[in-house]
Amino acid sequence: MTDEFAINRICIIGVGLIGGSLARALRNADVCKEFVGCGRDTRHLDRAVQLGVIDRYDIAPAAAVQEADLVVVAVPLGAMEAVFAAMQPGLQDGCVITDVGSAKTYVLGAARAAFGVLPNCFVPGHPIAGTEQSGVEASVPDLFVGHQVILTPDEVTEKKALNRVRSMWEAVGAKVTEMSPQHHDAVLAATSHLPHILAFSLVESLSRLEDRHEVFQYAAGGFRDFTRIAASDPAMWRDICLANESEILDMIDRYGKDLEQISRAIREQDGELLLHLFQRARDARRRYDEDRE
Amino acid sequence: MTDEFAINRICIIGVGLIGGSLARALRNADVCKEFVGCGRDTRHLDRAVQLGVIDRYDIAPAAAVQEADLVVVAVPLGAMEAVFAAMQPGLQDGCVITDVGSAKTYVLGAARAAFGVLPNCFVPGHPIAGTEQSGVEASVPDLFVGHQVILTPDEVTEKKALNRVRSMWEAVGAKVTEMSPQHHDAVLAATSHLPHILAFSLVESLSRLEDRHEVFQYAAGGFRDFTRIAASDPAMWRDICLANESEILDMIDRYGKDLEQISRAIREQDGELLLHLFQRARDARRRYDEDRE
Repeated sequence: MTDEFAINRICIIGVGLIGGSLARALRNADVCKEFVGCGRDTRHLDRAVQLGVIDRYDIAPAAAVQEADLVVVAVPLGAMEAVFAAMQPGLQDGCVITDVGSAKTYVLGAARAAFGVLPNCFVPGHPIAGTEQSGVEASVPDLFVGHQVILTPDEVTEKKALNRVRSMWEAVGAKVTEMSPQHHDAVLAATSHLPHILAFSLVESLSRLEDRHEVFQYAAGGFRDFTRIAASDPAMWRDICLANESEILDMIDRYGKDLEQISRAIREQDGELLLHLFQRARDARRRYDEDRE
Repeated sequence: MTDEFAINRICIIGVGLIGGSLARALRNADVCKEFVGCGRDTRHLDRAVQLGVIDRYDIAPAAAVQEADLVVVAVPLGAMEAVFAAMQPGLQDGCVITDVGSAKTYVLGAARAAFGVLPNCFVPGHPIAGTEQSGVEASVPDLFVGHQVILTPDEVTEKKALNRVRSMWEAVGAKVTEMSPQHHDAVLAATSHLPHILAFSLVESLSRLEDRHEVFQYAAGGFRDFTRIAASDPAMWRDICLANESEILDMIDRYGKDLEQISRAIREQDGELLLHLFQRARDARRRYDEDRE
């Protein structure tokens, strides 16, 4: 199905946690000769060169992508359309384009808007990996090892381009699957977007309590784990919320109803229902751990 | 303020994660000669003897507490009143009683109901420690090292009894503070009870999605951390919800309003508000980590 991955030049637009980690991983795998970076902040890009993540950079997308065999767009969702439009004049024939955005319907829309029609060399992708940290300083070469990467190709997407992106992710140790952009967005709203919003909202709630300092002082290990993702990049999460609006609102609504059910059971002192709900959740959570082992 | 802790016989009623870990820790600290267990399940108690956690046991509370200098009640909240009542006939003069329950107003009410009046040798306590595991097999001697223990003495509580319980917890490495039961219940509703309910509710929501297996398959590390506490003991959490009803309902209500604010901001595509809320949460979460370092 897939070919060996080996290319001359890759251009990574947005050399942060994800873009930087991908460059490090591909460099370790020794499958690409030259790494060109692109971004808005020359200090970050200078740092990326210093760290050996990229070989050189250009802040103009059209210049950065020149003679690249593959372009990876790893910018926040809100910047996608502008980056697509800006890089277009520099793309060489046969160049494959992919991205790492967390809301695929939105990215496909941004690509259509920027390019006029969806290019058949564009392969939307999303690595299910990351930490609550951000920036090239936090990038590590093994970020994708054993992690899922979801590709959401369109009808017009060329098989050859799809295979190229698939084999790139396999070269850095990821497990690649394909699904429709709509399905991706629903799954991610449930497993990633909703939990992040709940964590942001919890920390926000608690930080407005009058005795905030004391509240946090008595928080135990479970709270630390539970709210770790609330330290994630706020601008990235703003963009995700705006880009995957309908699926996220649907999940918050669904979640609100379940929370209301627990609330009602507490108010009515319905211990039987609480036990039933908590047992079902505990069992589901344990099966999840077992499936991972 | 506190005296050195050394006693002849301690009775631990409920030899699970907390009771078992306390026995192991006190044994390691070499401050108690004999450890007597009590519980309903002789297989668990036999196992606790095998593991060296307790020296012997009696399933009748009144017999188990005989000649004990200190009794620690570490049973689920729903069992407190019955245990208090059952142990009363066996208590010797001067015996100090404490508990480890997560809802202090409720425990004080259970003690008043069982004993008729609140005994001046009863010191309500709550170690802010634990894992999502339960049972004596999961008990470890260092569970309390560096953790907070909150004591919520009443006006009638004897200074001597209070100091005894304080020095017991200090002997196993905990940091002991005092506050009113009402304040404890409000703080814990925010930092522990609400997060557990949110995690149970999230896993419950997701497990009912049709494509459950797939949903969990694409969940990343953040989800794993976020939902770990949903694997906690369902019966214990049912009891906590019922026992700390008003504070928990108040926190869920407060939280629901904050979540609704985010929901509305997404629906109205108000990126500025989302960024503001997420930034504030990120900053609060980072300060929390810094305070711990």
